[in-house]
Amino acid sequence: MTMSSFDRMWESLRLVGRDPKTRGYRRFAWTREDHTLREWFAGECAARGMEVVVDRAGNQWGWWGDPDATPGVVIGSHLDSVADGGAFDGPLGVVSSFAAVDAVQRQGFRPRVAIGVANFADEEGGRFGIACAGSRLLTGALDPRRAAALRDADGVTMAGAWRAAGLEPNTMGPDPEALRRVTAYVELHVEQGLALALGPDGEPDLIDPARAVAIGTEIWPHGRWEIDLFGEANHAGTTRLEDRLDAMLQFAAVVASARMHAREAGCLATVGKVVARPNAVNAIAEHVTCWLDARGADADAVRGLVDAIRAEVEQDEGSVNELSWTPATPFDVALRERIGAVLPDAPLLATGAGHDAGILANAGVPTAMLFVRNPTGVSHSPAEWAEPQDCDRGVAALAAVVRELAG
Amino acid sequence: MTMSSFDRMWESLRLVGRDPKTRGYRRFAWTREDHTLREWFAGECAARGMEVVVDRAGNQWGWWGDPDATPGVVIGSHLDSVADGGAFDGPLGVVSSFAAVDAVQRQGFRPRVAIGVANFADEEGGRFGIACAGSRLLTGALDPRRAAALRDADGVTMAGAWRAAGLEPNTMGPDPEALRRVTAYVELHVEQGLALALGPDGEPDLIDPARAVAIGTEIWPHGRWEIDLFGEANHAGTTRLEDRLDAMLQFAAVVASARMHAREAGCLATVGKVVARPNAVNAIAEHVTCWLDARGADADAVRGLVDAIRAEVEQDEGSVNELSWTPATPFDVALRERIGAVLPDAPLLATGAGHDAGILANAGVPTAMLFVRNPTGVSHSPAEWAEPQDCDRGVAALAAVVRELAG
Repeated sequence: MTMSSFDRMWESLRLVGRDPKTRGYRRFAWTREDHTLREWFAGECAARGMEVVVDRAGNQWGWWGDPDATPGVVIGSHLDSVADGGAFDGPLGVVSSFAAVDAVQRQGFRPRVAIGVANFADEEGGRFGIACAGSRLLTGALDPRRAAALRDADGVTMAGAWRAAGLEPNTMGPDPEALRRVTAYVELHVEQGLALALGPDGEPDLIDPARAVAIGTEIWPHGRWEIDLFGEANHAGTTRLEDRLDAMLQFAAVVASARMHAREAGCLATVGKVVARPNAVNAIAEHVTCWLDARGADADAVRGLVDAIRAEVEQDEGSVNELSWTPATPFDVALRERIGAVLPDAPLLATGAGHDAGILANAGVPTAMLFVRNPTGVSHSPAEWAEPQDCDRGVAALAAVVRELAG
Repeated sequence: MTMSSFDRMWESLRLVGRDPKTRGYRRFAWTREDHTLREWFAGECAARGMEVVVDRAGNQWGWWGDPDATPGVVIGSHLDSVADGGAFDGPLGVVSSFAAVDAVQRQGFRPRVAIGVANFADEEGGRFGIACAGSRLLTGALDPRRAAALRDADGVTMAGAWRAAGLEPNTMGPDPEALRRVTAYVELHVEQGLALALGPDGEPDLIDPARAVAIGTEIWPHGRWEIDLFGEANHAGTTRLEDRLDAMLQFAAVVASARMHAREAGCLATVGKVVARPNAVNAIAEHVTCWLDARGADADAVRGLVDAIRAEVEQDEGSVNELSWTPATPFDVALRERIGAVLPDAPLLATGAGHDAGILANAGVPTAMLFVRNPTGVSHSPAEWAEPQDCDRGVAALAAVVRELAG
């Protein structure tokens, strides 16, 4: 039995940027690991005779056919990861895209328009804090001057990271020409909840092939906020409790309050990242910065919970700074219906996770998503998983979609 | 007017390891900055004809006279700092010690025994997490194998840091020979509370010269604990609140609970340091490590509050690990009375801060402390301060003590 192209590609990515201790991936944008992944992407394109174009936002596009002559359908995803992320979030979409190209080529398919595979840069925002930076830059949703000045934890700017990766940051910015080549974008992604793994009755059902791949309907409204809390640095052993202004106590209140407001509003709110200063065992915290992630089906409910947290933080003379806000993003209905026609059994699914597909949809590109079943619902973790047969079903679904859209 | 030796030394240290943004000091043990400070110390000894000895724990001793022939009185402190610490915590004691030597030499004083100035290594524990590492190693209170294996935030071991600083970690350990040379140790330190700045009536009084320098009576019992809290890594946008195990929420509860128990117990408890993993904006925290510092006049009350926190943490299947515990440390009564005789106006003061003097006292060395008034009580902060005339009074007091003890 020969190895499938999917399995070969999967194996070649397996050890790139994997932390041997956590077994999670650390594939941050514009690092050595990311460079390896971009080289891999270019190599896979070359092996299929696809021409690689890097747009002004740093995203990679591999084209089969001439998209300037016949703008076409693009499939793809991203290759970067969160800190200690899983193997599937991103790479499953890219690898499945190449495998779908292989499948339609094996079938002797002759596309009427160009077919592209995309690798969007810096989707997770794990290094510079802005998710979907590559697609936001591409569409103009992120100002290139602001992006260039973003700093990672070591103080390196995105401009500096671009330069170190061999890109010229002065050319960074929107790229309408690259966008014009795309008549439709379809992103396949591992599901990040349990909607498919739990059958319609809410009981685990990992067998039903009709629940292996779903069609996306919309991305929930979601945003990120940076919260700064201020105390007074002082000695932990000599400062009376009543004389203290302790930023860590304010932080504890924010974390508890975010959960409480989220529960009341029926939304999701998470404080997953914190940086305390001076962060010393025997010093009272002078400054705590934390990041709030909030989402939900209803935009007003999400904004309401953030406003409630903001009011509490500002009462303590802290500040809440909106880093990003993405309203509800419905995917293109006509495109979804065409896809539904070739995948008649696929359930419809809304998602709380942001994706480059959402950024492109907001920029007017007809966009759709496919979700592959995740048996545990776990993602952004080394435990993230999809069954091999479900991955195969994802590739088959994507190939069917490509034939439909480019045929 | 010529510059005093104190002012010259103070000026020469002013910019070493100072962060230009925070204006605080980052003088961590065995770094380049620490090396500069140790070179400075050796230079000040050489300028006074004092011989420098480095003991097996890495502490520096400058000797005037032969301490093997006539073991003698040692004054000194440390030169390292917490992250973004102030200029006084540590250096005030070392600089005042050299200035006191200058003063008694100017006075033509002929000591009967050797006089030493000490620079204890790694007092703050800002890099490896164990306070007073140098004096603990010296006295055997810290196992050298445990010390050598401690890691800093970048994963560098203390053994590696020693090697990089030109010391041989295999010789690290207790040094009874170095201790035998010390018949008394007197450490001068900036006060870290408001006991002297507030007069006996509790009102600010920064004028009374009798309240410029105090004599230490004891160090409160104090300890440090590492607390590990475990969640499940997952995506912040797709995991329902009821399916989450969020280590950041547990952390918020620990911070709030530590303050509550401390208030009830009449003790101090501080969570000043936190490390979250993966520490990503859109990932639920899988693991939070934080450090608890607790102290108070009554050891049972301190242990009681830690036990209460431990019970809560263990209920959530977290763990609390004691890094250090130092019982109440009374300073030597006979030594304190001799010092009181030459400083009859000096108030007596207990302190919540740990010091190398406490470690030496616990090892049986007759030990005393002098505290210099701090007008704001702020320490471990760039705002830490002592008035120049109070520093002069500290030097005069220390010189009087040296004459008394070595005369």
